[in-house]
Parts: sequence; structure tokens; C-alpha cells
Amino acid sequence: MIIVLKPEATAENRDFVVDRLKSLGFQTHISEGEERTIIGAIGDERQLRDRPLSSLPGVEKVVPILKPYKLVSKDFKKTNSEISINGIKIGGKHTTVMAGPCSVENREMLFEIVDKIYDAGARVLRGGAFKPRTSPYSFQGLGEEGLKYLREAADSKGMLVVTELMDPRDIDLICKYADIIQIGARNMQNFRLLKEVGKSGHPVLLKRGMSATIKEFLMAAEYIASEGNLDIILCERGIRTFETETRNTLDLSAIPVIKNASHLPVVVDPSHGTGRRDCILPMAQAAIAAGADGLIIEVHPNPAEAMSDGDQSITPDEFATLMKRIKIISATLERHLEE
Amino acid sequence: MIIVLKPEATAENRDFVVDRLKSLGFQTHISEGEERTIIGAIGDERQLRDRPLSSLPGVEKVVPILKPYKLVSKDFKKTNSEISINGIKIGGKHTTVMAGPCSVENREMLFEIVDKIYDAGARVLRGGAFKPRTSPYSFQGLGEEGLKYLREAADSKGMLVVTELMDPRDIDLICKYADIIQIGARNMQNFRLLKEVGKSGHPVLLKRGMSATIKEFLMAAEYIASEGNLDIILCERGIRTFETETRNTLDLSAIPVIKNASHLPVVVDPSHGTGRRDCILPMAQAAIAAGADGLIIEVHPNPAEAMSDGDQSITPDEFATLMKRIKIISATLERHLEE
Amino acid sequence: MIIVLKPEATAENRDFVVDRLKSLGFQTHISEGEERTIIGAIGDERQLRDRPLSSLPGVEKVVPILKPYKLVSKDFKKTNSEISINGIKIGGKHTTVMAGPCSVENREMLFEIVDKIYDAGARVLRGGAFKPRTSPYSFQGLGEEGLKYLREAADSKGMLVVTELMDPRDIDLICKYADIIQIGARNMQNFRLLKEVGKSGHPVLLKRGMSATIKEFLMAAEYIASEGNLDIILCERGIRTFETETRNTLDLSAIPVIKNASHLPVVVDPSHGTGRRDCILPMAQAAIAAGADGLIIEVHPNPAEAMSDGDQSITPDEFATLMKRIKIISATLERHLEE
Amino acid sequence: MIIVLKPEATAENRDFVVDRLKSLGFQTHISEGEERTIIGAIGDERQLRDRPLSSLPGVEKVVPILKPYKLVSKDFKKTNSEISINGIKIGGKHTTVMAGPCSVENREMLFEIVDKIYDAGARVLRGGAFKPRTSPYSFQGLGEEGLKYLREAADSKGMLVVTELMDPRDIDLICKYADIIQIGARNMQNFRLLKEVGKSGHPVLLKRGMSATIKEFLMAAEYIASEGNLDIILCERGIRTFETETRNTLDLSAIPVIKNASHLPVVVDPSHGTGRRDCILPMAQAAIAAGADGLIIEVHPNPAEAMSDGDQSITPDEFATLMKRIKIISATLERHLEE
Repeated sequence: MIIVLKPEATAENRDFVVDRLKSLGFQTHISEGEERTIIGAIGDERQLRDRPLSSLPGVEKVVPILKPYKLVSKDFKKTNSEISINGIKIGGKHTTVMAGPCSVENREMLFEIVDKIYDAGARVLRGGAFKPRTSPYSFQGLGEEGLKYLREAADSKGMLVVTELMDPRDIDLICKYADIIQIGARNMQNFRLLKEVGKSGHPVLLKRGMSATIKEFLMAAEYIASEGNLDIILCERGIRTFETETRNTLDLSAIPVIKNASHLPVVVDPSHGTGRRDCILPMAQAAIAAGADGLIIEVHPNPAEAMSDGDQSITPDEFATLMKRIKIISATLERHLEE
Repeated sequence: MIIVLKPEATAENRDFVVDRLKSLGFQTHISEGEERTIIGAIGDERQLRDRPLSSLPGVEKVVPILKPYKLVSKDFKKTNSEISINGIKIGGKHTTVMAGPCSVENREMLFEIVDKIYDAGARVLRGGAFKPRTSPYSFQGLGEEGLKYLREAADSKGMLVVTELMDPRDIDLICKYADIIQIGARNMQNFRLLKEVGKSGHPVLLKRGMSATIKEFLMAAEYIASEGNLDIILCERGIRTFETETRNTLDLSAIPVIKNASHLPVVVDPSHGTGRRDCILPMAQAAIAAGADGLIIEVHPNPAEAMSDGDQSITPDEFATLMKRIKIISATLERHLEE
Repeated sequence: MIIVLKPEATAENRDFVVDRLKSLGFQTHISEGEERTIIGAIGDERQLRDRPLSSLPGVEKVVPILKPYKLVSKDFKKTNSEISINGIKIGGKHTTVMAGPCSVENREMLFEIVDKIYDAGARVLRGGAFKPRTSPYSFQGLGEEGLKYLREAADSKGMLVVTELMDPRDIDLICKYADIIQIGARNMQNFRLLKEVGKSGHPVLLKRGMSATIKEFLMAAEYIASEGNLDIILCERGIRTFETETRNTLDLSAIPVIKNASHLPVVVDPSHGTGRRDCILPMAQAAIAAGADGLIIEVHPNPAEAMSDGDQSITPDEFATLMKRIKIISATLERHLEE
Repeated sequence: MIIVLKPEATAENRDFVVDRLKSLGFQTHISEGEERTIIGAIGDERQLRDRPLSSLPGVEKVVPILKPYKLVSKDFKKTNSEISINGIKIGGKHTTVMAGPCSVENREMLFEIVDKIYDAGARVLRGGAFKPRTSPYSFQGLGEEGLKYLREAADSKGMLVVTELMDPRDIDLICKYADIIQIGARNMQNFRLLKEVGKSGHPVLLKRGMSATIKEFLMAAEYIASEGNLDIILCERGIRTFETETRNTLDLSAIPVIKNASHLPVVVDPSHGTGRRDCILPMAQAAIAAGADGLIIEVHPNPAEAMSDGDQSITPDEFATLMKRIKIISATLERHLEE
């Protein structure tokens, strides 16, 4: 950590900062420049994060040198992680596609979708049983019944289930039925929930918060990892910007940036990321071309009748077309569709 | 709700939309313009929010006419709400100031602060007992012990206690010690938590999410209200923008906008809203001048030693200066400091 | 255009709005809903854009129905435009790549780059002669000398030249040397400049402003088109968001959104769009996979020595690798590299 | 400037960076930490801004220590600047209010407004003669005729004139009629225009760009200052965020942040900053309470008839009310209305 002093800082100010750092167990290193004095703090700077150094007298700014996360970083592990769940792999050279309806509406519909998406190449079934809706007056999901249907439908094809955990009280229930626990964008910084899924040891799909920086996204993953669980799949799902033509702005450059900083696999959700049916196919293609390890896509047999998110779901036929394109683009990048 | 058809939409497309609306219980109204046909849906449009109308064939866009919230709107109640808790009032002509440390560090410190902030005019004591930190390696709060200290310290002066609820499992604990339950910015759309505090009937301080629009903010309040609890205080605490000089961008124009749309009181948090000690006094003044019903401010006897948020806390003396200014500006606007 | 009245609006308020609309030459259409009265204005709503209807007494909001742009829209021309300049095509089924140094530093360097990028498949040479720098203390470009070098180097291979116009006083100079006039992101709403390039009739590469919505981007194109010049190539180059890991957030979903709304070709600039060398290859691939008509890329023989933008330039060898990938992805989407 | 090396950087990488810095005239200072090696570059770091150091092999990141601006900073001049034009002062202890119509529509209207705003306390007349409109189909202003009216109307009361320069070709014309040249938000980084107004020596009102950081805003001012003109008034006018209830988000915390970093006066434009009539009074009050040196406000005798920006203009009567409040709040802060 570097502490930059104000031009008018006194020798007393400087010594006070140095003493403070020493009392916290750091070595210091002073460099008097032409316009500023800077003090380097040598030691584990993560210990200093919460110390209010920037409000000490004479301090102009505090510049961290290290990344705030550790276990999820490439410093900690140089090779890309590959997560294997019941023989299905995520990361490495595999392109893994998760698909399914926004919310589980009934048993028949789910089996119908599973038949089609499995044939097209999806290996993970997604679906919501508890639906947190922006409006208190909307359909809120089938609850445990929905979870059962997801499990049965996935088992009929040997697929995995991913579904969202929203309440720490539901963790046992979700772990009973799902192979991968989804932490939604709105809960990315729900630290209690992160700790619980960390302790559970269950694989986690962590969605990026709508206004989370990549650094904060990786810090949320670090929360899970710090409890001993490194089976984390990151999911880019769009960030909030001033643009209103799309529901969110899908930040595909997050893929190379994260790949550079972390060993964790990254998948992309073009359904929530754009909120527009006409953007899903091109953005799914683009995500894979940008180096994503997979996709998570909303598929509904009849989007116009969907009880939620119909405007951003595609049909099983459209999904099959998308998968053909994904297969070719993956091959171009020396990856292959996980089967 | 208005449905705008594409220029190339057929009569069949139009009739399909009309039939769909009728089957959902709406009357329709067709207007053929020079460049577009538009269909008006007459009925309670909140029922249509989740229907995927915009993906029906021939539809260009769907334009909602009504606000998505109801109970918290000025349509529902024309006069500004005034919430009274143990004789202390928030809203109406009262300027109510909440103050205290970011996190409760120990009993002595809390009593020391309470003495000083009460004298300066604060009537609500704030403080965190459970601290959700961005880093898993930081101080996480004193827990129930911290809640007890808050209660005792507040009682010594007849002040109210506001503290944050982060986990639905803690609701009874928080209600036992606090007069006002704070829902933090990160949980503004944690709908499970909103339902719980709605059912509890306890007064709520709802903070605006970092990337929440004012409409979403009011929808979150509607969630609480829809459970029968209208004792809601809204809190503007800064939104995330591209500017990095301040931790967030304090959106003071939210005050007149909310006052125009809702009857609920609005307070402002310049500590989290700016993240800079040197901005707290001017932005507190500005908030009151913009029409806020109060403030919530972090005060620490020795910010340089604070275990969290020291860089955005002010000293009791600085707080006293701030309160003098607030008193005069309130009077200019025909308000008075709640005492 | 739809005018929504407040619930408390009187019959007088309503009639005043109706009279105002009639006096402006519009027919009106009144619909009394359960909670609101709405007035439809039938006629060319572009005439109403600047009328302060929303501040008339009793008006709650004004909702435009039509898009504000016309000539550049798909309503005006249903098929995608293909622009042909000296036999080189942009748009349609062609993938056209523009490449070159950020700024022209000297003649030799330019000929060296041109040799290599032409062989790799670039057909348009980019380069800056006038460099508007954020800092007044930076290298400002070679001026006309730079333009001459660009022309000569491009001519040696039959390539086109694209370079930026920043000052209306330079338009003749730029037109003398360049085949395509670039309007930079900072000038996207410099309406004087837009008019000048519109009148010039010269093909234009219009870059999206850093904080411009897609609607505003298309309105800027409309400015040029309204002067009779439809040879416009749109360029997505990243928007400003809260994320700081990349210089801008490259908004690739703008590609399908624009393709849906406009007939103009769209190219992508991953160099400025990310500001990071390690993001250029993946984001170039992603842009083509998302449906872009081409790319514009900064290439420098020795980025570490570049006089500007070295941190976002790639080497001629890296460019050749990129072009191989682009060729395959284009083919997957039934496009071909323009040669 | 601090150069942080990657953990895997070799001694060769380190020496290469050091040699590069030395060849550029810098002294270096190496500190080997536990996890990273950092190199300090001692010398005028503004020289290094454009050097692509971060793309050198083994470099992880480059951290600037100094602010990129100099002449406009508090380091350069510790006391707040006070600009005096024909006896009217801006900055220091003066609260100076600029008011007038968005665009000059005719002579009578202007004289009518001037009478009223002068009586209310405005001392600078604002008004647009050239109107750059987002739509090419809108009213574009009266041109030189408008400038003449502005001058005459202002002279009738001894007021100053501020009006916008948009085209470098108009600079002599604008200087002939106006006392203060306005640089609009869209031109904040039009570096050619900045140079021209810098050379002119005329006082400048520089508006913050819609997506400009405070640092970029001050850099734009530095551009003007670097030509020898320090008569610069900064104007906060709202930034673009995701919030759509207001046209822009007025960033009042920019006031204390700028006051901390620069000696230049800062005024606020609540008309463009919010785009809503109902927000102008509260946000004007808030701006002064936050420490602004003045305001610039759109006033129109009949906003509902205005040819531009009617929705964000207030009437002369509303302006008079606003001025009364401003006077009291100024006094609270030991300032006084400039008369």
C-alpha cells in the first residue's frame, strides 16, 4: 500500500503515519519526490483495508497495490479451474450450456423442454422455483414442488440442476434438489448467503450484481472461497448503464478481464443480460467468441404464454439453432461442447 | 397500457393482441395513426406487467401508463405522511436527525457519542451490530451484544434506535432492540426480507439500492406496504455512477422527485452517499435545502481509530456545527428540528 | 404522441391540451381510463418534440410513439445498406476491417504497417493526423503532413483512408486526402460538424458518443442524413459505465439493437472500446459473432514505443492472428472478408 | 508515478522498465515487497502520461501519484479565485446568479425578462443565439440578431451577457457581444474550441460534460488555462446515470470535491441538471447550501409557449421566490448575493 502525503504535510504528519503503520506490523519505506512524499507500507496490505488511513492528517490519498481477493486470483492458482459435477464439466476446454424456463410453471412443460434442450446439447437444467419479483403482485413460483419437478426432469436425461437460493433458511432444501446453487445478481453482496453457500461445499453459480465492478464480483467469490468452497462458476449477466434499449448492458469484456485475473470459469446469461429475444442469439455467439466457458439461457415452449420473462425467452427450435452456431464457434477457439 | 404495433403488422396481428387483452379481462381501444396503429388496454394494468405482450407478433413496444406502485403513491394518499414513534416524529414539518457510529465497537464509546449527539439535536441513534463487509477478512460486528448497548445508550436519553437487518432469521432479535429496522442498500430488492419487515409492522428505514431507479425504490417500499406496513422512511444514500472521486453520487434530485410521487418521508445519508469526510457538512446542508425530512450521519469520537468507515465519519464537534447549520436552513424552509 | 393527464386534471385542463394540439395541426383522440385520461395526438409527432407539453397544467407525462429518426430507420429502408467506395464494400455480407496506428508518427512506420495489415486482410487504413488529447501537454499530431503520408501509404495498396475531422475549418483538407471522414466520439453531438459532413457528401464513419444512447446515436446519424448524405457507417466504441477495469464498456448488444432499428452498417472499435491490449482479440471476435459489419483496430509495429495509445494497440503479427479468426467466424455467419 | 510489476516479472523486465524511465529523464526507486516489486519514477510525471508503460513486459499496473492538472489546482493557488467583470464578481464570498431564456426568441420577450430578473437579483443574462438541437428538425436560434438583443437588453440594466460558442469560426462574433463565453457540456472536450477561448483571454463559463469525471472537467479547464486564460467559471449541470426520472443526475457533491481540488469558482445549472420544472427551486437551494458560487437558471415569461426547453424553465415570479430563498441560505453560509 502506498500512502501519498499532501504537499503541505509536515514532518510530524509523516511520522504519525509511519508510526501508525509500524504499530500495525508494517515496515515502511519513505520516498521524497519533487512534489509529494510517498510512504510505502510493506506487509499484508489486506490488513489495512479498513483502517481509515486516508483521513489521517496530511494524507492526500491511499493507493492499494495488491488485489483485494486472493484465493480466486491467478496469483493463487495459475491454471484455469475445471469443475466436474457428476461427470459434467465446466471450465477448461469445455463449452457448457445451461438452459430452461425462467420459472417452473408445471411438470409437463418442464419435461417437454428438457427433451428438446438435451437433444440440442444443453447439459444443465435451469429453472426458478422461488421467484423474487420486482412487483409484489406477480407470480412467485411453485416452491418445493417446482424443485421436485426440476430434479425429476433433469434425472430423466442425466442433466444437472441449477436453481436460485434466495433465503438462508432454504439452503438445505435447495441442496437436496439442486447440483448447483445459483446466487442471483441481487444477492451478490448478500454476505450471509455467500457464507452459507461457502460452508455448504455445494457448487455455486454466482451472478454478477447489476452494479458490481469486476473487482467486487471477484470479492464476492472470495467470500465463498474463504469458507473452503472453490467450486464457483462466475456468471456475467449485464450491468446497469444509461442505455435503455436493452434491460442491461451485457459486459462481454468482463470475460477476458476475469480470465486474466482469476482461474474460475465464466458463463454468460444473454437472456437477462439483454432482456430482448432478438439479442439472445447474437449475444450468445459473441459470448462464446469472447472466450466464455458456457451460457445460461431461458427457453420456453411458448414465450408469449410464459408466466415470467416471456419477453426474453427463446423457443426450443431457436435454441437448437443457437447451439449449432455455438458448436462451430467453440471449435474455432479449440473448445468443444460438453456432452 | 398502450401497445404500439409495427408498421408492417397485419390485421391478424392486431386482432391477436386484442383477443389476448380481452381474455385477460381488459377492454381495448384501437387508434390507427398515420404511421402506427396503437391499442389501448383499459383495466388495471398492474395485471399486465408480467405478460409478455412485447414479444407477440407485430408488436413494436408496450408503454405502461400507470406507475407500478400504488399504496406508497401520492395518488393513494395526497398528504405527506408523518410517522410518530414514541413521540418522536419523522416527516411533515419535522427535520429528524439520526446519528451514531458505523459499527458499535464498545459500550463506553457509544455512551460518549450519545451524550454529544443528543445535545447537538439528534433524536435517533444509529449503529451497526452485524457488519456485512465487502471483504470476508474484516471486522464483522459485535452481534446481540452490540444491540444491547445501542438500546441502553438510546434509552439513557429517550432516543430511538435504528439498526440494520440483514438476515430474515434475525428479525425477532432486531425487533426486540430496535425501534426502526434498517434495510440496507444491498438488500433493497431482497424481497424475502421486505416481506418479513412488512409483516412485522415495525417502522422501516429503507435505503435506496446503489443502482436502483427511483421507480424501483418505490416498488421496494410497495413490497413492504403490501403487507400492511406503511411506516416506511425512504433513505437516499447515493447511486453508482462513473464518477470515482466520491464513493457514490448522492442523488439529491431524488428528494423533489420522490416528494412529487410519494407521500413517504425521505431522509439522506451523506456519509455513505459521498464516502468523504469533507463532503458530509456541505451535502447535509444541501439535502435539507432540497427538502429532505432528515439525515442519517456517521459520527465517531476518533474517526482515525474507527474499526469501519472511519474515512466517512465526522467527530461529535463537527456534528454539532452541522446541526447548527441544519437548524437555520430548516427554519428558512418553514421546518423545525425535531426535539 | 400520447399525453397522459394527472388523476386530478380538470375538464378545462384536458380541453386546453386538446386545443393546443389542434392549433399545432394535430387530430386528437381521447380515452378515459379507470385511473387516467389519455389524449392521443395524430399527425407527425416529430413536430411536437420541442413543444413543452409536459409542463401544461394537468399533464402527467408525454409519451412519444414514433422513433425520433426517420431516414436512417428500417421504416424508411427495409434492407441493410451496403456502401461501396472505390470498389471496397462496407455492409451487406461483407466483413470490412480498418486498421492502422492511433496517430501517424512518420512515413516509414506507416508504410511498414500498411504492408502487413494489407496482407492480413485490412482494406481501410486508419490513422490520426490531428490528435485531440485529454492533456494539453501531449503530442498533438503531424497535421497535413500526416494526411499526405496516409494517402500515399493507402494508395500503394489500393486501400481507403479514414481519418478524423475535428474542426469545421478543416473539412476541405480532410476531404482532399481521406475517403471516409471520421467523426469522433467526443463530436457525436457537435451538430455543426455533422451538418458540414452531411453537406460534403463524403462517406462518414460516425463514432458513438461515450455517453450516447443508441437513440441519440441514430439521431446524430439522422443529422448527417438530413443533409442528403446517407453514406454513413456507425461505429460502436464503448460507453462510459461504473466499471474501471476497462477504459469503456464495449456495448456489443448495440449491434443487434441497431440492426433491428436501422439499415446502416455497424463496425466495432475494440481498441478504444476496451483500452486494453489483452481484450482486443476476444472482443474483435465477439463483435463479428454479434453481427458487426467490420472492425476498426489500432496496430502499431512497436506498441511500447507508440506516441499515443500504445497500451491499446496490437502488433502486426497479433493483427494477422486476429484476422484469421475473424475470417472463420464471418464464414460461420455466412459473411466473407471484404477483399 | 508508481509502476507495479507482476509477481512473475523477471529481473530483466525490471531493468528494462528502469532503463526506459532513466532514458526519459526520471530517477527511479525500487522497493521489493512481499508480493510485488514496485518502481517509483521520480520527476515530472505529466511527461509520462502518454508513454505506454503499462504494456511493457512484466508490468501489472501504473499508478499516477500527481493530479494531471496543475494551473487550475489548489497546489498552484491556495486561495479561491474571484473573477471580476465590469464590477460584477464571481467567486469568493459572492453568490452570483445568471438567468434568462433558453433561446432568444425575440427582442420584446428578452427586455421583459431582463426587467424582472434584474429586480429579483440576477446580474448576468444568459440566452442562446445558436441552438444546437438534438433533432435536425428543431428551431436553431436567431444567430447574430439574437446576440444583439442580448447585448442591448443586458446593457439596459448594466448586466453581463453569457452565451454559448459552438463553432471556432464564431469566436470573434461571440466575443463582440458577450462578456462570458459559454462552452457547452457537449463541447467540454472539444479541444480546438478550448484552445481558442484560452487564447481569446475572454472569461469562460465551462460546463461539465454529461459523462465527464471531475478530473476530466478540471483537465478541460487546464486546457484553457494553459493558453494563459485563468478567468474560468466551472458549471456543474448534471451527469448521465441510469436514473431516468430526471434528465440528468445533478452531482452536487462535485461542488465540495472541486472546491477541495481547485481554486476556480463553481456555479450550478439546475435547469439542465434536472430537466424538470418542479426540481429547479429545491435544487437551486441545495446547490447554494452545498457551497456553489452561483446559479444559472432558465427563465421564460410563458414556459408553455417556449420554443425550446419549456419543460425546464421557470417563470419570472417563480424566479423571484427562488432568489429570496437563495439570499437567506447564502447569508447562513456567510456569503452575499452579488449586486
